[in-house]
Amino acid sequence: MYELGVVYRNIQRTDAAVADALARFGAATVHEAMGRVGLLQPYMRPIYAGAQVSGTAVTVLLHPGDNWMMHVVAEQIRPGDIVVAAISAPCTDGYFGDLLATSFQARGARALIIDAGVRDIKTLAEMNFPVWSKCISAKGTIKATLGSVNIPVVCAGALVHPGDVIVADDDGVVCVPRAMAAATLDAATKREVNEGAKREKFAAGVLGLDMYGMREPLAKAGLKYID
Amino acid sequence: MYELGVVYRNIQRTDAAVADALARFGAATVHEAMGRVGLLQPYMRPIYAGAQVSGTAVTVLLHPGDNWMMHVVAEQIRPGDIVVAAISAPCTDGYFGDLLATSFQARGARALIIDAGVRDIKTLAEMNFPVWSKCISAKGTIKATLGSVNIPVVCAGALVHPGDVIVADDDGVVCVPRAMAAATLDAATKREVNEGAKREKFAAGVLGLDMYGMREPLAKAGLKYID
Amino acid sequence: MYELGVVYRNIQRTDAAVADALARFGAATVHEAMGRVGLLQPYMRPIYAGAQVSGTAVTVLLHPGDNWMMHVVAEQIRPGDIVVAAISAPCTDGYFGDLLATSFQARGARALIIDAGVRDIKTLAEMNFPVWSKCISAKGTIKATLGSVNIPVVCAGALVHPGDVIVADDDGVVCVPRAMAAATLDAATKREVNEGAKREKFAAGVLGLDMYGMREPLAKAGLKYID
Amino acid sequence: MYELGVVYRNIQRTDAAVADALARFGAATVHEAMGRVGLLQPYMRPIYAGAQVSGTAVTVLLHPGDNWMMHVVAEQIRPGDIVVAAISAPCTDGYFGDLLATSFQARGARALIIDAGVRDIKTLAEMNFPVWSKCISAKGTIKATLGSVNIPVVCAGALVHPGDVIVADDDGVVCVPRAMAAATLDAATKREVNEGAKREKFAAGVLGLDMYGMREPLAKAGLKYID
Amino acid sequence: MYELGVVYRNIQRTDAAVADALARFGAATVHEAMGRVGLLQPYMRPIYAGAQVSGTAVTVLLHPGDNWMMHVVAEQIRPGDIVVAAISAPCTDGYFGDLLATSFQARGARALIIDAGVRDIKTLAEMNFPVWSKCISAKGTIKATLGSVNIPVVCAGALVHPGDVIVADDDGVVCVPRAMAAATLDAATKREVNEGAKREKFAAGVLGLDMYGMREPLAKAGLKYID
Amino acid sequence: MYELGVVYRNIQRTDAAVADALARFGAATVHEAMGRVGLLQPYMRPIYAGAQVSGTAVTVLLHPGDNWMMHVVAEQIRPGDIVVAAISAPCTDGYFGDLLATSFQARGARALIIDAGVRDIKTLAEMNFPVWSKCISAKGTIKATLGSVNIPVVCAGALVHPGDVIVADDDGVVCVPRAMAAATLDAATKREVNEGAKREKFAAGVLGLDMYGMREPLAKAGLKYID
Repeated sequence: MYELGVVYRNIQRTDAAVADALARFGAATVHEAMGRVGLLQPYMRPIYAGAQVSGTAVTVLLHPGDNWMMHVVAEQIRPGDIVVAAISAPCTDGYFGDLLATSFQARGARALIIDAGVRDIKTLAEMNFPVWSKCISAKGTIKATLGSVNIPVVCAGALVHPGDVIVADDDGVVCVPRAMAAATLDAATKREVNEGAKREKFAAGVLGLDMYGMREPLAKAGLKYID
Repeated sequence: MYELGVVYRNIQRTDAAVADALARFGAATVHEAMGRVGLLQPYMRPIYAGAQVSGTAVTVLLHPGDNWMMHVVAEQIRPGDIVVAAISAPCTDGYFGDLLATSFQARGARALIIDAGVRDIKTLAEMNFPVWSKCISAKGTIKATLGSVNIPVVCAGALVHPGDVIVADDDGVVCVPRAMAAATLDAATKREVNEGAKREKFAAGVLGLDMYGMREPLAKAGLKYID
Repeated sequence: MYELGVVYRNIQRTDAAVADALARFGAATVHEAMGRVGLLQPYMRPIYAGAQVSGTAVTVLLHPGDNWMMHVVAEQIRPGDIVVAAISAPCTDGYFGDLLATSFQARGARALIIDAGVRDIKTLAEMNFPVWSKCISAKGTIKATLGSVNIPVVCAGALVHPGDVIVADDDGVVCVPRAMAAATLDAATKREVNEGAKREKFAAGVLGLDMYGMREPLAKAGLKYID
Repeated sequence: MYELGVVYRNIQRTDAAVADALARFGAATVHEAMGRVGLLQPYMRPIYAGAQVSGTAVTVLLHPGDNWMMHVVAEQIRPGDIVVAAISAPCTDGYFGDLLATSFQARGARALIIDAGVRDIKTLAEMNFPVWSKCISAKGTIKATLGSVNIPVVCAGALVHPGDVIVADDDGVVCVPRAMAAATLDAATKREVNEGAKREKFAAGVLGLDMYGMREPLAKAGLKYID
Repeated sequence: MYELGVVYRNIQRTDAAVADALARFGAATVHEAMGRVGLLQPYMRPIYAGAQVSGTAVTVLLHPGDNWMMHVVAEQIRPGDIVVAAISAPCTDGYFGDLLATSFQARGARALIIDAGVRDIKTLAEMNFPVWSKCISAKGTIKATLGSVNIPVVCAGALVHPGDVIVADDDGVVCVPRAMAAATLDAATKREVNEGAKREKFAAGVLGLDMYGMREPLAKAGLKYID
Repeated sequence: MYELGVVYRNIQRTDAAVADALARFGAATVHEAMGRVGLLQPYMRPIYAGAQVSGTAVTVLLHPGDNWMMHVVAEQIRPGDIVVAAISAPCTDGYFGDLLATSFQARGARALIIDAGVRDIKTLAEMNFPVWSKCISAKGTIKATLGSVNIPVVCAGALVHPGDVIVADDDGVVCVPRAMAAATLDAATKREVNEGAKREKFAAGVLGLDMYGMREPLAKAGLKYID
């Protein structure tokens, strides 16, 4: 599935205005706006609470216990990017710590999404460099085997192409394909307007049963109330 | 095991004074006071730290990827209730977010216990609406299949009847059957008095070996000290 | 593998100056300084963020659902110790709460490392008594079966001898064998000096590719750049 | 949730003719016939392939690492029963081996369903005594703590009352409540007749799309074919 | 990531001669021949031992608890195909049983690869219809939501395009992209010739240390022998 | 914890007569005979059913994704040995296949115990070379990093010293320390004699309650029978 030992230098990033604008909607709304696809597995968790970001994906494929390509991908980062790291087989090692984070941040990266472990998480929080990862591990890695940079990767069950938009917050991580990004932004904007009105009604005690007109379809489906 | 497509409107709730009084003891003490039964599996975790609640259970059975019945259960909530949501097969989807929380809170619910995922957790924390869940997931659900409301459910390995008391804090979630609630409150109260005295002794350096008279039974069991 | 029913009273602790000095380097640096061995499995997580400790191990072997030996090990604690608890078969019960923590703290223990569950975690955080555990569970335990104290134990996949140094922080838990402790302290000190210089260069935008001279070995390994 | 230290001697078993007749339909058909409820979690697997049984449940609640109540439940077994064993907290120990199996078989038990481990599985296969369990483990247990016999239990996520029917085969384990057993037998019988006709059509190459009239609802739902 | 509600009728299948020829090498050799990529996660296991197949992928994306699209994909099967089923969120339900298997087999399918559960496994074994799945579950599914057929899918962590070659045996499942299939067949053939010669030497007692000339690189890497 | 880059050539093996004699008792009996310690985690499963072996341990420590040391350990195998392979961090790769098995078998090894994956399992079964492993995976490994041979290792949670006895069958894997091997053989022999007598009584319908005199202690513990 994967081409090994290559670095694609010229990738087509999603328009920055679109990529940046998606952050404020958060993963749940963006995921809905896309039609409920593109979500990374829920085992991907932020190393600290409260971060909410979006950005364009630069991808890296690594091997178990080997973070050599992390240094290769660093050079390909541009301001506004989010690095998405996939591993060729399940691994819990800590591929990334405060030194690499300093480098990534200096290059303009906004976050790291990695289907493996990270470390130095206290320092990463102090640096305001958010990471969504499978686990946290103090275990370091070696630098021995080639992977690839900016090829399409499968990260935590989701396909990510370089240049796609990543949206991540406390609810998880979503990948928005470049071709769908503008439409997703539109749909998310509309959704949010809607939600504000609904929230007020719910707060006033209106039931979803009435607001969404569910009583009839529920009855039709056979729901019975017993006193 | 489950009756499908029914909503029981009239359930017998545990006396509110008893249900409310259990909160301050917390899950661990209440669990001990009941004889070490009734605990939901430890994979049930709060979405934010520090919440400690008790209340009467209204139950809902949902299907994988389908949260239709969440709107049905909302109508059955009375002030002081805690919604307990079971799923008919393992699922990690995010069944519940800030809109439903607004509705539940407006109806008087104190918390949600759900053997699946939730989302909008940052907003839920700001709203002070605590949730104990199996996971966190931005993935939404559809509204297509009937479940039931206020039938007995198995949630995270524990049997919960509507009207039972739920006690939840950072240590986990306990279900106290209605018939045992008053006795459990008594036992918990006694237990706590006891614990205060013990804590002081421990703080003063007294060993459990001496306080509990364990040296003799340990010796009898064959424990050997080697210098 | 295990000798049952024994308590070794005289163990050889790592020199306190060395054991204490390791704390500030943290688990990741110490783990690297030892040659990337000695790490407990990454499922071992702190019950609250931010604690960073080191100390000498006193060990205890317990059985599933039984914390009797916790009271036996309490007597063997000396100021500066960290209790390392292994279970003879996988168990998620809450073996340890605020009462035992009061006792351990009164004896001078700095932390507990346990391959099972703990409870009363809100109180433990208020007491500033850190615990690294496999899970959190309100479920209590009985006191019926003998284990052992201060025998070598396997805790979360790592072999720990009494008197070894434990280093634990948000990244995980490392065991430094007594015989390697002084050398590890030296190596960690050197490593840290190095890291400061590197961090500055990374922050200034220097790439690891150049700083570590990786371009040539990467090319030799066959890495290709595609424009 | 659980009453501890009690043995109910007189339970109302499902009519034997009904309980026995359900075996030949297997877990999948019976589960469908009940409306897709009552299934134990899919981690429950047979220790050898090919067994297919049904029988009336006698239940036992055990504690982690303690199989004392297995001997108590043995006395309550009648020919045609299946023992359903729940544990009060997750445990992987081997609670049951060839000796207990000899006793159970002598009493007329047809199988064991246990939410924990078993051992001596080669001998159990030779004895033709099937077990569905969470795992296999050589680790034995002690005999120290009271549980209960013939109380309602939650086993692998499903509620089982004494006297319910258990149906188990290579696909898993289903619990049919006593009150639903006769109706389920009817529904399963009808379902099977239906399935024979369908199988022939499928074998002849007829598509489900046509046989079930799905083309129109799929088109209505918006399905598009692209050449 | 996924286009929903579409069925691609015309896909470019890998040349049948190549696709068929890969079966006899098995998953491990094919995986090596491709450069150690393309493997589905090892939790994918065959429902019975001994099957070894290859074929061209037709893909289907399903939703949790919903197998409607299984009937849609059936129509797209041609002799020599293997159906690859991905689910849009983790699910353990039994999506596939003997009826669908009869239909798939009648259309010429050789196997099913599904990142969820299957049922009727005894009958599937008797029919000689192999399945590699995440689990086995008697739980059925509904038919309510559109997915897609013959779009690229991520199945058990691997990206599969329609028309790629699937190779599966007791060791697992590998996806060979169409563009790499011929080259992979060549590489696998060479690899196998090599292995025969090696096997004979190993059987005669020759060590890999000598056969592969490893003694010098091991010494260079610092390996020390201690008597 | 681990010494890296060393091979101990002279290890003290348990007396062959003792090591060989333990096989026929199997893992469960041997584990009981040792006092219920020394068991590897129950996730260690045989790749095929029915094998039952014992032998002296030669140990190897490997790194994730790297099986270089497998060739180094091969040279240290003597007839009657069982290779015990530990990995320095969790890994599911297939470290071992039919070629290495041919080499190990030619050297006289009886089995492999590995806390990771294996492949070519159909061929291994045909060769009658049993393996107990964490998983099965077609994924191969590289040969780049030094581990060690014949140092004490932690394998699947159990400490194994070179020269200890390994006993493995369908119930799991037990490690008997060299110093305890003779005593364990005695204890196992006595246990087995006992078991034969018990089995006959159980088969004749005698209850464990009576055979073990449990009625009185159960009553004393408070067990109540309810009619």
